[in-house]
Amino acid sequence: MTVKQYTLSLPPMPRGMHLITAKVEALFDGSVQTGLAHLFLQHTSASLCLNENADPTVRSDAETFLNDLIPESYPRFEHTLEGSDDMPAHLKNMLLGTELTIPLTHGKLNLGIWQGIYLCEHRNYAGSRKLIITLQGA
Amino acid sequence: MTVKQYTLSLPPMPRGMHLITAKVEALFDGSVQTGLAHLFLQHTSASLCLNENADPTVRSDAETFLNDLIPESYPRFEHTLEGSDDMPAHLKNMLLGTELTIPLTHGKLNLGIWQGIYLCEHRNYAGSRKLIITLQGA
Amino acid sequence: MTVKQYTLSLPPMPRGMHLITAKVEALFDGSVQTGLAHLFLQHTSASLCLNENADPTVRSDAETFLNDLIPESYPRFEHTLEGSDDMPAHLKNMLLGTELTIPLTHGKLNLGIWQGIYLCEHRNYAGSRKLIITLQGA
Repeated sequence: MTVKQYTLSLPPMPRGMHLITAKVEALFDGSVQTGLAHLFLQHTSASLCLNENADPTVRSDAETFLNDLIPESYPRFEHTLEGSDDMPAHLKNMLLGTELTIPLTHGKLNLGIWQGIYLCEHRNYAGSRKLIITLQGA
Repeated sequence: MTVKQYTLSLPPMPRGMHLITAKVEALFDGSVQTGLAHLFLQHTSASLCLNENADPTVRSDAETFLNDLIPESYPRFEHTLEGSDDMPAHLKNMLLGTELTIPLTHGKLNLGIWQGIYLCEHRNYAGSRKLIITLQGA
Repeated sequence: MTVKQYTLSLPPMPRGMHLITAKVEALFDGSVQTGLAHLFLQHTSASLCLNENADPTVRSDAETFLNDLIPESYPRFEHTLEGSDDMPAHLKNMLLGTELTIPLTHGKLNLGIWQGIYLCEHRNYAGSRKLIITLQGA
């Protein structure tokens, strides 16, 4: 059994959904053939999830829907000092989540053919985002 | 420490929430007594989650609520070529998730007495769904 | 490689979001330096998630938003025998989730500086809540 841990720093990205599958896959050297890869985003106003990896309108429709579901003008929010996009960002983070576990098979992420890893940036002007990636297996 | 990996193919199911706990439990042979079981659905228009395992109205109410929250007639969706149930399916998948990690204790899933594993089928006419199941522990 | 499993019983808490990071961290004795900690809530009407750990209005705004999103007076719910807060609790549980995996680095939870662990109590009068905590790593 092997355990390995990496840090992956993502550059600042515009608000919206971004495919980061290739950046994550580039970290794997085959030292874990069968097991699990765990991706952990150390932030509370961006999210990590899986979804369709082909058509960019899935990503823009998802951004549209979440902005409608949790509007910045929500009249009952009290946590507004850090900007109108801040509390909606925390709520999107609660609903989408910040961590993923993905099976490793033959040394690679065993994703379905339509699955991609999304970094969902919920802030208008965000900095770099940091992921802790842990591999466990044999 | 042991790592084991299985594939579980589920037959096509109607749109809605389905309990699959027994199908998952049937895979365990006690080779991992203490550790974790990871269930990973390789799809972007069905979800995997835990919820109440007894009353079928919980499952039908959940289907009702999600359909109201993310209506097929949503006017701002652009990803509509694959049918009106497609983009709502991707969004339900983002909100509910596609993977679960459950503790193994004495060789069995250590679920609460009311917890069951749901396969949530979001498409009207879906095919078979594939799960990758990974066990790690001692 | 080491695997350890603990049970953590949380006392009854009022409806709303509660920070439990310190209670979870108190369980770690450094026997796993690099690996993963898995937290599993054995319930279907409370949730476990990560979010901002500093400003209490994030927690109250999250409670407000979720109550507006899934109102107790929802006219189409059939699962109402256990109280008007019951079906909304199951739905919040589906959306927020009941389990978290967090990296362990140098023997400690490797959370971002603003990340805290939330126990989200969705019932008005809940009992004690039980967590199964599993550590794996080296």
